[in-house]
Amino acid sequence: MNVLLVHAHPEPGSLNGALRDFSIKRLEAAGHHVQLSDLYAMNWKAVLDANDSTAPPAGTRFDPSLDSGRAFANGTQTADIAGEQDKLRWADAVILQFPLWWYSMPAILKGWVDRVYAHGFAYGVGEHSDHHWGDRFGEGTMAGKRAMLVVTAGGWASHYSPRGINGPIDDILFPIQHGILYYPGFDVLPPHVIYRTGRLDQDRFARACAALGQRLDTLATTAPLPFRRQNGGAYDIPALTLRPELAPGRHGFAIHLDQA
Amino acid sequence: MNVLLVHAHPEPGSLNGALRDFSIKRLEAAGHHVQLSDLYAMNWKAVLDANDSTAPPAGTRFDPSLDSGRAFANGTQTADIAGEQDKLRWADAVILQFPLWWYSMPAILKGWVDRVYAHGFAYGVGEHSDHHWGDRFGEGTMAGKRAMLVVTAGGWASHYSPRGINGPIDDILFPIQHGILYYPGFDVLPPHVIYRTGRLDQDRFARACAALGQRLDTLATTAPLPFRRQNGGAYDIPALTLRPELAPGRHGFAIHLDQA
Repeated sequence: MNVLLVHAHPEPGSLNGALRDFSIKRLEAAGHHVQLSDLYAMNWKAVLDANDSTAPPAGTRFDPSLDSGRAFANGTQTADIAGEQDKLRWADAVILQFPLWWYSMPAILKGWVDRVYAHGFAYGVGEHSDHHWGDRFGEGTMAGKRAMLVVTAGGWASHYSPRGINGPIDDILFPIQHGILYYPGFDVLPPHVIYRTGRLDQDRFARACAALGQRLDTLATTAPLPFRRQNGGAYDIPALTLRPELAPGRHGFAIHLDQA
Repeated sequence: MNVLLVHAHPEPGSLNGALRDFSIKRLEAAGHHVQLSDLYAMNWKAVLDANDSTAPPAGTRFDPSLDSGRAFANGTQTADIAGEQDKLRWADAVILQFPLWWYSMPAILKGWVDRVYAHGFAYGVGEHSDHHWGDRFGEGTMAGKRAMLVVTAGGWASHYSPRGINGPIDDILFPIQHGILYYPGFDVLPPHVIYRTGRLDQDRFARACAALGQRLDTLATTAPLPFRRQNGGAYDIPALTLRPELAPGRHGFAIHLDQA
């Protein structure tokens, strides 16, 4: 497979840097082709603004959505954005690897999403009607591709457990896994989370690599999270609420997984 | 009160820009003192890195947490970070106002959190022992201050309803409200969310301002979300799981609110 690894840590010699190097080696040894977007090393521009198009805003005001759509359609995106979109088109699988900072991704990676996910590319795709609300949540540009998060966290696993103070890790990651990855069509694999990384000695690092290696070895075969397709009949359109007969009486992130 | 408004939108003439101007006028008319951190206008540096200290990393490698703690303790933080911390110390209430991009804040605002929330300032504060796991989640540097999110979203309210496809808005915002605001001690007010902002005509804008104005008028008096205090006996330490007799048998973000 073609694998794109998007990596966001400021220190090449960090645990995250070591996991990045381990992943590339492991994937290449298995015969995969790997491209790396090492956002700090690339000095990635994190902030979406009017300079993301080589053409001026079409209106009197910059509109983040409309102007990104025009730049995408007219070929006036900056080279860094177009380059990342090319990598995404090339990839069969995408791995986002990052430390959990304040319960989300580092700003530089959020800015990769904000800027690379152009209107017409990652959203605003497909028919919008009273029975099809865009190609999204199960359809879209990334359909047929796989994606996986590899996340390091300083806290303990119990802090992220179902009754842990931080909230369950699956819920913390839902806006990323469902809202950023499943939205444009990726099949999203279960995340790989490494906890308590502040105290990772040689032995625990070896075990962390073994566990991550196992996930990389099965990247092509692991069953994705069973998120429900938006346009497959599970949701009322345009309200986009889950139909009452599915997960009846329940609410929250978990109802968007078909666990029947 | 002293109110800090942190604002993150690239276009001054946008709806978000108009809401920013409206908020400042409304708050000042009520006698509050307002400081504005208009992150795009300030050309805020979004990306946390070794340049956030005027001193070199203490070790051979840059450590985002340890080095931010050293810079904070030694007075070697960059002026932009120290300036925002001063604004936070000055404020009695903080408003974060932003468009919801990919189910979270724009990268520039995430980068404000990543960089301003230094170790020793927003985390790593207070005793860490087997009965007190740091001054956080109800205690900390921001204790006694109020915070509120003002968020614009292109989607419909139903899309963010309890059974909406995006997930409930309270769950989407939990990592910010609980993880970023309550963590260092803020009392967090219910969020103010404005939906379907792509089609806001003059009439709906007037109504949006009226509703926001009402929230600003009651900034000092609105009851905060009843998040549970970490060190008040509700959680087992160090596992930091909610004690079994509280919200028995339940799990997820909502159990961290004391709704008894």
